[in-house]
Amino acid sequence: MSKIEAIKKMMYAKSIAVIGASNKKGSVGNELMQRLIDFGYKGKIYPINLNDKEIEGIPAFKNISEIKAEVDMAVLAVPSKAILGVIDECHSANISNIIIISAGFKEIGGEGVVLENEVVKKICKYKMNMIGPNCLGIINSKTKMNASFNPTNPNDGKIGFATQSGAIASGIINLLHKKSFGFRQVVSLGNQADIDFLDIIEFWEKDAGVEIIMLYIESIPNSERFREICTRVSKVKPIILLKSGRSEMGGRAIASHTGSLAGDDISVDALLKSSGVTRELYLRDFINTAQIFNNCKMPNGEKLAILTNAGGPGIISVDTANDYGIQLAKLTENTMTKLKAILPPQASAKNPVDIIASASLEQYTNSAEILLKSKEVDILLVIYLYITVKNDVALIENLEILKKKYPNKTILTVFETSKEFYQKFAEMNSTIPVYNYTVDAISSLKRMIDRKKFLEKGTQSPTRFDVDKKKVEAIIAETKQNNVKTLSTFQSLEVFNAYKIPLAKYNLANNFEDAKTIANQIGYPVVLKISSTKITHKTDIGGVITNIKNQKELQYKWQELFDKLEKNNLTKSINGVVVMQQIDGTQREFVAGVVKKENIGNLAMFGMGGIFIETLNEVAFRPCPLNLNDAEELITSTKAYKLMGNIRGYAKADTEKMKEILLKLSQLVEDFFEIIEIDVNPIMIDKSGEIFAVDARIIIK
Amino acid sequence: MSKIEAIKKMMYAKSIAVIGASNKKGSVGNELMQRLIDFGYKGKIYPINLNDKEIEGIPAFKNISEIKAEVDMAVLAVPSKAILGVIDECHSANISNIIIISAGFKEIGGEGVVLENEVVKKICKYKMNMIGPNCLGIINSKTKMNASFNPTNPNDGKIGFATQSGAIASGIINLLHKKSFGFRQVVSLGNQADIDFLDIIEFWEKDAGVEIIMLYIESIPNSERFREICTRVSKVKPIILLKSGRSEMGGRAIASHTGSLAGDDISVDALLKSSGVTRELYLRDFINTAQIFNNCKMPNGEKLAILTNAGGPGIISVDTANDYGIQLAKLTENTMTKLKAILPPQASAKNPVDIIASASLEQYTNSAEILLKSKEVDILLVIYLYITVKNDVALIENLEILKKKYPNKTILTVFETSKEFYQKFAEMNSTIPVYNYTVDAISSLKRMIDRKKFLEKGTQSPTRFDVDKKKVEAIIAETKQNNVKTLSTFQSLEVFNAYKIPLAKYNLANNFEDAKTIANQIGYPVVLKISSTKITHKTDIGGVITNIKNQKELQYKWQELFDKLEKNNLTKSINGVVVMQQIDGTQREFVAGVVKKENIGNLAMFGMGGIFIETLNEVAFRPCPLNLNDAEELITSTKAYKLMGNIRGYAKADTEKMKEILLKLSQLVEDFFEIIEIDVNPIMIDKSGEIFAVDARIIIK
Repeated sequence: MSKIEAIKKMMYAKSIAVIGASNKKGSVGNELMQRLIDFGYKGKIYPINLNDKEIEGIPAFKNISEIKAEVDMAVLAVPSKAILGVIDECHSANISNIIIISAGFKEIGGEGVVLENEVVKKICKYKMNMIGPNCLGIINSKTKMNASFNPTNPNDGKIGFATQSGAIASGIINLLHKKSFGFRQVVSLGNQADIDFLDIIEFWEKDAGVEIIMLYIESIPNSERFREICTRVSKVKPIILLKSGRSEMGGRAIASHTGSLAGDDISVDALLKSSGVTRELYLRDFINTAQIFNNCKMPNGEKLAILTNAGGPGIISVDTANDYGIQLAKLTENTMTKLKAILPPQASAKNPVDIIASASLEQYTNSAEILLKSKEVDILLVIYLYITVKNDVALIENLEILKKKYPNKTILTVFETSKEFYQKFAEMNSTIPVYNYTVDAISSLKRMIDRKKFLEKGTQSPTRFDVDKKKVEAIIAETKQNNVKTLSTFQSLEVFNAYKIPLAKYNLANNFEDAKTIANQIGYPVVLKISSTKITHKTDIGGVITNIKNQKELQYKWQELFDKLEKNNLTKSINGVVVMQQIDGTQREFVAGVVKKENIGNLAMFGMGGIFIETLNEVAFRPCPLNLNDAEELITSTKAYKLMGNIRGYAKADTEKMKEILLKLSQLVEDFFEIIEIDVNPIMIDKSGEIFAVDARIIIK
Repeated sequence: MSKIEAIKKMMYAKSIAVIGASNKKGSVGNELMQRLIDFGYKGKIYPINLNDKEIEGIPAFKNISEIKAEVDMAVLAVPSKAILGVIDECHSANISNIIIISAGFKEIGGEGVVLENEVVKKICKYKMNMIGPNCLGIINSKTKMNASFNPTNPNDGKIGFATQSGAIASGIINLLHKKSFGFRQVVSLGNQADIDFLDIIEFWEKDAGVEIIMLYIESIPNSERFREICTRVSKVKPIILLKSGRSEMGGRAIASHTGSLAGDDISVDALLKSSGVTRELYLRDFINTAQIFNNCKMPNGEKLAILTNAGGPGIISVDTANDYGIQLAKLTENTMTKLKAILPPQASAKNPVDIIASASLEQYTNSAEILLKSKEVDILLVIYLYITVKNDVALIENLEILKKKYPNKTILTVFETSKEFYQKFAEMNSTIPVYNYTVDAISSLKRMIDRKKFLEKGTQSPTRFDVDKKKVEAIIAETKQNNVKTLSTFQSLEVFNAYKIPLAKYNLANNFEDAKTIANQIGYPVVLKISSTKITHKTDIGGVITNIKNQKELQYKWQELFDKLEKNNLTKSINGVVVMQQIDGTQREFVAGVVKKENIGNLAMFGMGGIFIETLNEVAFRPCPLNLNDAEELITSTKAYKLMGNIRGYAKADTEKMKEILLKLSQLVEDFFEIIEIDVNPIMIDKSGEIFAVDARIIIK
């Protein structure tokens, strides 16, 4: 049985054995029984208890072997020390799917780790499947099965929620009682010793009852599998994720290369973005976003109309929409004329449409319909404040009707009304999302629009270019043979050259005569850079000399450089000197790079270069292999992008060429698994907008 | 009677005439009467109605003149056309304080504006005082006076809320029913034709019942008065402000000088920051921040301890605290030993302290007390999730006791529990702030810590330097005489020189011989800059030539410059050429400036210079006159600050000197009201960390 089949068997279990079931109030074994009963589970329940004949009124068994019937799933709530024995018993009784509720495993360290390893071995050996250990259990609202010890039962809904923290499940179930949406299925993942959250996602991919996936996780152990599964599933079902443990504990030394900039959470974030996962940082936003995905149609366009019965909240909504980059619909004369015909003269028919405090239910409903009907509106935000006319409940009912009538439009609401409303609303079974605050509505809407854009982009294959791979093979082979980890500057430039990355003109000089010839070929001014596999920070030792304007200066600087090397006993550490065309970067310096991150894979970076790398941190990351969309996002997602425009008379840079650089770096690291870090720093744009990489560093393992 | 006395008289009115009182359900005149009655107003109510003998059971009068008793306040809810007559009647009846509820004034434009002007004239002539028109009314929970037509009555509390939007008052009153705090007084400001929000703030400054001020406004008409009053009052009572209308409608051309960077909301924000006002952008945060100011003691320090019964929420809180820059308390061994003694082995005694799901009420309370007792903790965040043990209400009660026992510590909570809790909590009259989400608690806490820091800084007088004011007087007089608006580059530099702003060495050359002499004095390389009162963008016409390395080059470039000027017929437009020392800014370019903004006054700016001004927008603003704190904040509040550090071998810049530049610019614009804009762009920092202003532009009116 595959993990997916096993999860299905458990989620739709027709019979459940509760091992460690108990009559003791407040105990986990009792809570488990209570939930199965009070949520209304219709399958067979087999409580296992050594002493009691009945548990919560259901006949109990002393041992699993006594059951003599098929058991789809066993829920284990016995002390951790008894677990191994119970697994043996389950195996003997032909029970192959278990949930281990019990704690006392990996999470306590030491002997717990040992015990968990033994559990996993047994599960493997017996070809069993396990959720947990150290979890709350699982819930399926469809079959009214609450096989968890959560103190309450969830609202039913369209959401599948998998969580590494049982408490977060409890918390959200409690918070959702006030909302108009709920959970179809909940899986408390526990230590994920066997079945993990990716298995659950693959199961939900096929379970029609789950239309939206919520995930609370604390780590992503296998980023390749994550990217593969989430990229596929997120196309069909939105995946909303809250990943905690973002803050980097302890000081991390800041340095200016790709590797050190790619902090753990930055890497995770890059992975999530490229996998189409909607990420939230806070529980509040996690729930708000789930609400809009649950209750709203993905908008056809991005044009928002606001309908309000008060001016102040209208202005606040405009501010908020502006903050989140959401466009306001420009209402046509035709639409405004229709609105004016039904509204008092003090009302405003412009967006935000303010139908003032005296608005009747008819005026509210008809205005909403006029807006929903109009072509220029994709999304309608209805704001209702109880000021003078109370029609909150009726308005929700009317919006529900309009929602059915205009299925192509997206409707959301902000209600600030009397407390009685919320009570009634909770019982209405409405599909209209009601937020308390505009910012919650708008920020959630933003997530939906972002997802819409992501889906519209579609999937692209990584772009591949025709390159001289053989040449790179030779350079890397040579580097390996020499038993060094860093390619020299010249070698790194040669690798870029082989991959047709635009470079300033350069060549390697072994003596002054070489240098003179090269400089004449290139044209002054030129730059000298020592090329070495040993000296990585060539600037620090004065190994880079810029702005050499003529042969006389070249001679002088060459001598000066070698005197310095001699003095520091470094002459033998270099493999020559790169003579390079001097580029006037006009302050437009960028950085690109790739780093191989543990658990994440190759991550490409792009951003502002020079001294701005450390100070401004305007850099973005995306996992490799990059496709054209990824490259575009890398470039446009930081303020570095603005520097590439036509600015102060400097010509606009060729962004297509910049994308090509990133795509070629991605191709390079995908072609050569040995490469663990590449830095192209800086990439300069000259006055005419032309792009040149002027330095290179490649590290292999 | 001063406005403050008038507001007091109205807020504590012993007798109220309701002009336009009505028995018609749903009418404003009826709602007003209902609220006065149902909130429990104990003063005398005089309904005025032409037809009915009684309004809501209270004897009515046909006319104000019939009352024959003192009336502290009249509330006018009659059609706008009748208002002028009613004001006459009020005057005749010796009623000097009125609230005009009626709409139909400035807010409708046209005749409404005319009518409002007439109302104001009458109010002035009769020496009356007025709140409104076009408002909801006022509320005083202390005297149980709800003189508004808001459909509900507020919770009592310590907050004074003044709002330009009546609907926002309604909305917040509704939302606050779910919270543990409320309003002492509410003022719906309406059009503020007479009494405005600053009058209200000055009244609350002296009203002991109002301890926290909340303000919703849409504009700040008088920024000088705003700054004066709010700076004074905010020291004693927190002022929390939501100002809407932030988004700049229509495209604003982006340019690189101070004036165009100081957008309307940026200017307002600078004003608010310097006035000690706590600003929120969204209603959600407005309420959350009010809650912490209402219910929590200002912390003594900034060290936060987190107490939780679940790991997941604990990790989320650490992430969130980290996001908001709040420090976690490092618990001492002593504290951790005490915690371990009362907690099960699976619990974690490190901060965040995780007392796990099984935590009893005693364990919760005792752990909280251990943390509150410990010196290393200033703030305690208690997180409670209902997972297995339900002790939410009792825990709140115990925290209430601990709050009294440890009055120097700040306590806040996040509860995610069953719905029954919230019902009970609303009736408990607790002073413990309960948030649903950690991010709401932490972001509010951040505001409180920011306020603490602001108050600790104290008030500083603007720093003044000994400068050569006379010289500047002469330059400005000359400029005025010549009837131009822009000082030449040389004149601008001379002004800076007179104010001892550090400049690159320079002098004015009228011919090549001058230039040669100056360059020799300064030392090569030098820069040439045309000096003109007519050509403001000298770079655009090639009027700046950098990096001139020797006399030969100087001669060549000088000739080239004058050929160009000749060709473009500009020779007569210049007043000479500034020869200036060339500074190697090592990419460390900054900008400083001052602009006179309408309604705001002089605003100082500091940030990243060069091509980064437009692209990165790393600039900050503060209103003048600046004190040392303002100057420090200007420098440290953008990423530009990081560029001033020791970076890539470049020495750290002298920030004291940078502050001095800003303070001197502030002094300059305060000394000369004629100056409407100054740009110092760029200010460069060389490798040794020395600071030089290298260009200047001053505009006068």
